[in-house]
Amino acid sequence: MQLVGENKSHRGRQLIVKHASKACACDMTFSIFLPPQAEQGGKLPVVWYLSGLTCTAMNVTEKGEYRAACAELGLIFVAPDTSPRGDQIPDADEYDFGKGAGFYVDATEQPWSANFRMRTYVIEELPAILAAEFPVDIFRQAITGHSMGGHGALTIALSHPERFRSVSAFAPIVAPSQVPWGQKALAAYLGPDRAKWREHDAVALSEDAARLPELLVDIGTADPFLEQELRPELLERACADAGIALTLRRQSGYDHSYYFISTFMADHLRWHAERLTA
Amino acid sequence: MQLVGENKSHRGRQLIVKHASKACACDMTFSIFLPPQAEQGGKLPVVWYLSGLTCTAMNVTEKGEYRAACAELGLIFVAPDTSPRGDQIPDADEYDFGKGAGFYVDATEQPWSANFRMRTYVIEELPAILAAEFPVDIFRQAITGHSMGGHGALTIALSHPERFRSVSAFAPIVAPSQVPWGQKALAAYLGPDRAKWREHDAVALSEDAARLPELLVDIGTADPFLEQELRPELLERACADAGIALTLRRQSGYDHSYYFISTFMADHLRWHAERLTA
Repeated sequence: MQLVGENKSHRGRQLIVKHASKACACDMTFSIFLPPQAEQGGKLPVVWYLSGLTCTAMNVTEKGEYRAACAELGLIFVAPDTSPRGDQIPDADEYDFGKGAGFYVDATEQPWSANFRMRTYVIEELPAILAAEFPVDIFRQAITGHSMGGHGALTIALSHPERFRSVSAFAPIVAPSQVPWGQKALAAYLGPDRAKWREHDAVALSEDAARLPELLVDIGTADPFLEQELRPELLERACADAGIALTLRRQSGYDHSYYFISTFMADHLRWHAERLTA
Repeated sequence: MQLVGENKSHRGRQLIVKHASKACACDMTFSIFLPPQAEQGGKLPVVWYLSGLTCTAMNVTEKGEYRAACAELGLIFVAPDTSPRGDQIPDADEYDFGKGAGFYVDATEQPWSANFRMRTYVIEELPAILAAEFPVDIFRQAITGHSMGGHGALTIALSHPERFRSVSAFAPIVAPSQVPWGQKALAAYLGPDRAKWREHDAVALSEDAARLPELLVDIGTADPFLEQELRPELLERACADAGIALTLRRQSGYDHSYYFISTFMADHLRWHAERLTA
């Protein structure tokens, strides 16, 4: 583990950490904010934030405006990268596939399967590192994410509901099997058999009896990806059918950018804090 | 005037505006945040933010974390660029001089004098545009800035104390005539006659009887530029001699980055709002 960035901010410490990942067979970089309460010696609840297409950990770290609320609420905030990285990693010439677009799955298809194992990285390798190296209370975890990362947060939480006390998302891809971004990525990473896609599709997981008690989702009405890629109405129907208490807020005039995310970040963090400290 | 960016954020509108500048003889781009109160039809107080070396308007726009407080307090927030821009603009191969390093002066020396007229741009041209195009109350202006932009805020306010109801700075260059960054820039832009530098040096302006009633300055104790370039002790002495009520806060452990600025941004905005709405 190598500390490649450390800045005091909002009375806590914003760290950027690089490490050799076994899951992805390359160096990976994540961001972790330790609030001032971390100086007191105890373990603190953690909020995972999974980023969207094209992002690294730095987008939310620079633009997410989460530190003031985390410092107030005593939350650790962790942002992984969105794919394996490095010159030796296979890539595509498209923004929605390859590097920056890992979709939080373990790829089974060539040439992706050797490195694109973001599911294992996010749910096994990185939590173990956090538990060993930082004052993270692994019994108090929450998860959120944006767009492709909202998809990651929802599918990971639906697959491991016992692990997270609360789940939210910003403008998530909710049904990748039914939309262009998801169909392209899942076909390439997992192959053409759509049965294998279901465990990476939040709407399908809900149909297959995966359960969460509740869910908070914000989405902007001016989001250019709303109708073709995000389709929140599919999540609404799935949650109603599955008995998941969904709070879906259609935020008037907001788009898909960090100008939108940063607006509602503190809200989400307060919502998570209520459940993490209950 | 051309709107090159518009995003709803924190209930207001974050705009990026490009326009042909007469002062700089090139296209210039600035950022302006209109809080939700701008929808109500009246004029609102404005806070000017001048950026530091290497920055454009985008650094603070993305990393400054000012929008939540501006939306709460009803403040317009304007961030100009730090120099003229474009392929035809003379430049130097250094980060602290030429493009991105206008130092908020009107250059008199070749080859800079045709375009590097940031003082006129910031105190004449841009305020006129704002007054004409946006609901800015020109009788309620405040000014702040970071590093080179802190120098800009202090020198402009000391030269036009009647114009600003409040003045603050983050890690400002306070005595450019006495430090390497400033000596290099002022010599190149204004020539070797140091008498001409005095009106662009906050400490010298204070000695020359320019006055402000009070001043808020935050500076990090881990700022790598503290001792060689910033030298806050010179401002402390100058303010004491001139009778300016300086609140200088040495913030333990903070550096020169936006991780520092964003931590204290809301504080500064509240301080300005108290004076703008008194």
